[in-house]
Amino acid sequence: MGITLAELAALVDGEVRGDTALPITGGASLESAKPGDLSFVQDSRQLIRLKDCRAAALLTTSELAQDPRLAPFVRVIVRDPAAAFSIILQRLQPARSRPARGIAPTACISSSATIGANCYVGPGAVIGDNVVIGSGCDVHPGVVIGPGCRLGNDVVLHPNVVLYADVSVDDRTIIHAGAIIGADGFGYRFADGRFEKIPQLGTVHIQDDVEIGACTTIDRGAIGATIIGAGTKIDNQVMVAHNCEIGRHNVFAAQVGLAGSCTTGDYVRLGGQVGIKDHIRLNTGSSVGAKGGVHKDVPAGETWIGYPATPEAEQKKLVFAVHRLPQLRDQVKQLSAELAALRDEVARLREPNSHAA
Amino acid sequence: MGITLAELAALVDGEVRGDTALPITGGASLESAKPGDLSFVQDSRQLIRLKDCRAAALLTTSELAQDPRLAPFVRVIVRDPAAAFSIILQRLQPARSRPARGIAPTACISSSATIGANCYVGPGAVIGDNVVIGSGCDVHPGVVIGPGCRLGNDVVLHPNVVLYADVSVDDRTIIHAGAIIGADGFGYRFADGRFEKIPQLGTVHIQDDVEIGACTTIDRGAIGATIIGAGTKIDNQVMVAHNCEIGRHNVFAAQVGLAGSCTTGDYVRLGGQVGIKDHIRLNTGSSVGAKGGVHKDVPAGETWIGYPATPEAEQKKLVFAVHRLPQLRDQVKQLSAELAALRDEVARLREPNSHAA
Amino acid sequence: MGITLAELAALVDGEVRGDTALPITGGASLESAKPGDLSFVQDSRQLIRLKDCRAAALLTTSELAQDPRLAPFVRVIVRDPAAAFSIILQRLQPARSRPARGIAPTACISSSATIGANCYVGPGAVIGDNVVIGSGCDVHPGVVIGPGCRLGNDVVLHPNVVLYADVSVDDRTIIHAGAIIGADGFGYRFADGRFEKIPQLGTVHIQDDVEIGACTTIDRGAIGATIIGAGTKIDNQVMVAHNCEIGRHNVFAAQVGLAGSCTTGDYVRLGGQVGIKDHIRLNTGSSVGAKGGVHKDVPAGETWIGYPATPEAEQKKLVFAVHRLPQLRDQVKQLSAELAALRDEVARLREPNSHAA
Repeated sequence: MGITLAELAALVDGEVRGDTALPITGGASLESAKPGDLSFVQDSRQLIRLKDCRAAALLTTSELAQDPRLAPFVRVIVRDPAAAFSIILQRLQPARSRPARGIAPTACISSSATIGANCYVGPGAVIGDNVVIGSGCDVHPGVVIGPGCRLGNDVVLHPNVVLYADVSVDDRTIIHAGAIIGADGFGYRFADGRFEKIPQLGTVHIQDDVEIGACTTIDRGAIGATIIGAGTKIDNQVMVAHNCEIGRHNVFAAQVGLAGSCTTGDYVRLGGQVGIKDHIRLNTGSSVGAKGGVHKDVPAGETWIGYPATPEAEQKKLVFAVHRLPQLRDQVKQLSAELAALRDEVARLREPNSHAA
Repeated sequence: MGITLAELAALVDGEVRGDTALPITGGASLESAKPGDLSFVQDSRQLIRLKDCRAAALLTTSELAQDPRLAPFVRVIVRDPAAAFSIILQRLQPARSRPARGIAPTACISSSATIGANCYVGPGAVIGDNVVIGSGCDVHPGVVIGPGCRLGNDVVLHPNVVLYADVSVDDRTIIHAGAIIGADGFGYRFADGRFEKIPQLGTVHIQDDVEIGACTTIDRGAIGATIIGAGTKIDNQVMVAHNCEIGRHNVFAAQVGLAGSCTTGDYVRLGGQVGIKDHIRLNTGSSVGAKGGVHKDVPAGETWIGYPATPEAEQKKLVFAVHRLPQLRDQVKQLSAELAALRDEVARLREPNSHAA
Repeated sequence: MGITLAELAALVDGEVRGDTALPITGGASLESAKPGDLSFVQDSRQLIRLKDCRAAALLTTSELAQDPRLAPFVRVIVRDPAAAFSIILQRLQPARSRPARGIAPTACISSSATIGANCYVGPGAVIGDNVVIGSGCDVHPGVVIGPGCRLGNDVVLHPNVVLYADVSVDDRTIIHAGAIIGADGFGYRFADGRFEKIPQLGTVHIQDDVEIGACTTIDRGAIGATIIGAGTKIDNQVMVAHNCEIGRHNVFAAQVGLAGSCTTGDYVRLGGQVGIKDHIRLNTGSSVGAKGGVHKDVPAGETWIGYPATPEAEQKKLVFAVHRLPQLRDQVKQLSAELAALRDEVARLREPNSHAA
């Protein structure tokens, strides 16, 4: 069993240096590769990890292939080894096929809902009144789609996703299990000693090619829509509050929280556990490092870190300075002692007979 | 189409200055208002945003209405424009009506459960043995209510909410999708090199008029109940650990975490991503700013911020001082140089012939 | 009603000092105990809490039992009062029995799935193709188990848990409601101005005796498995990213986040809201304090705290130094003034007639 190296190399326009008939049975990282596995070297820093590598063959670049440490291995020369590995991996270890098309008998679908061609609707899924679903969608078991929602084509909703009423999700967007889209924003008016709910009458609009992680929550707008721009990728357990407007091709790592009415440009990146104050603007191409707490607008292209977050260089200076604080305290203490000593000496100089001393 | 301005003004005791017959078709913010929309001006800082505003009419106060920038608009004079806007919005853009009363045929309800009048139980909801549900409740699709739970009247459980056994939820409380109430508290005893589970035999009691956000988790007590006081509002992805006792009319923003056995007074406010150490007391009217980490009791009425959190004024002083640290280091360096120079000078003075120099 | 103290004492090898026939009706903490309740004193610091205690009897050690403050109470002498209390509590207030064995008619089970003896499968649970489930498992309502998953014996999946395809869960592991195991890891390649999904072809393997909290998410590996070691306990809303390998008997408090490819030794402890950078190693017996942000490997047995995290003693020194910063600034200001004054004095000394002044 296995696929010949020649066949795999052909998938990625690779040039085999060694036995083209070598049978390859799997793909793995350098450390975990077993005999028969293909792996890859992307970067010269990985070369030291080759010593005990048991891979049958390695994808690498023509430049790296010169290195003597690669000599013992059959090599496949490609332009981008990581990308090529990813492509080959899908041939070696195909992802599970999507569920068979069709609607489970225990799904509960409103008679006013419209479902396009080639969809899967799993057991126990609930689809509300006037919902419109495009073609090629997967609605997994336990998904609940509220009345008036609209799904484009090739949308995937993993198990137990909930869309509240009137949410729209565009083409090819993937929402992972347990994510909740369109719950009420957190808005109250304080009157007569209690918090009165402000009706959350808006919606959520998720554009094309978005991916949303497990247990992430995106609240509906108070008025108007909370928006997630095309191509944006959001990890698990992220919170996007009401009326945020997220740009295109943003990347938010896990456990990020954005308070209400934040806006971002395109290509914004947020590290894990970042928190953004309400009404903040993160401009195009800006980034915030993991655990940062942002309470000012971040200019385009800048990277901010820390809590409270500041531009990266400034924060690094602060962290450095804080780490030297104990030394600074010692230094000040010593200066103080030296100054006292000098003061005594000057006092002695001032006395008439000091010169005689 | 549309509703006349006079009719809307009457809902909020407003005085129309301009065309009372004006038809209004929607409500929106100043920026997003289209012709036909009503908007509002609450605050003089908003007046500069009126330049390109296309709203047909504006709610405002009698004082603000004097401003010439409001002159081009039909105005409706009210005491509290934001509150009036919220009331009118519900007339213009009514929230989706609640689901039709009745029990879905695919709901699974124990024969020992009791369900009051005028309830909705959605498809696939599961209601366990001896559950008692009051009147006017909404139990959405995919909700699971464990044995022995008790719901008051007019409770709303959004899709896929889970109540473990013996949880009680009082009148008019709303729990959003994916929230998990009454899972086991996180308690173990370490013995013989492993963690042994301490049985979590308590319950959760959620009082009247509480709102709980999507994917929030509130664990059951180890012994006795975890309590959420009446009127308290909790945002998404909040964690309340076993045996916390939360007071009335608290407000917790998203991603807050309280460790075990914390207690709060009434009117406590926590910003997003705040963390509270176990057994801490937050006294009545206290607040903690976003991302604060609290490991001491917070006195009544105080606002604490930072990590580790301290009273606000103190923390602001610290942050200010840290931001000036690089300058302080420079200053100390310079002092040191100056002191050295002065010491040299004093040394020269001390030498017999220095005066002759 | 109630159980005699003698009978309860026998369960824990306890020696009763007082009325052995005393009927005990419940167990409670010292503060909340009502007449008829049993409570316990583990530690001399608790003795001051006995003043208003209404418990009928107290578990305590032979040493503590000497204290006169315990004299008014019937005592039961045991080696470990907390452990004994936990055992007795299960007799007094038995945990709800597990659901009756059997498969609900509305569960949806693939014909290729295998389910062992003595299992419970609740209403609306969905079990995919080729799933293998051992004996004595509880699969609660709304659980979705993807194709190819394997469960050992006595596994408990609480309501609405989702296992994506090919996840394996070993014996006696408990997963709480709403937890999502095996969603795609967060991996993209940036090319041509957009993020392209890297297929996540690995799995998740959860070993024996693990407990996983509500709404926790554990992503599948990109290649190979994300692993949770035997005996590890994970609280609610924790995020474990792709290809993490967690050791045995770890304890992670709520809202912890580990980025991709982190590894831990055995007996590692993480406080609430801790964040760990990708590819970090936490060695055996290490700990990180609540809210810590770790971006370096933590050596075995060390405790790190803070953001960025450092060894505990070092961080405490830094926090102390920061809290004294305002005083340090004042001190430097004063030094500067004193130096200036001294410089003036030296200048006067230097002038020929200064001695005459």
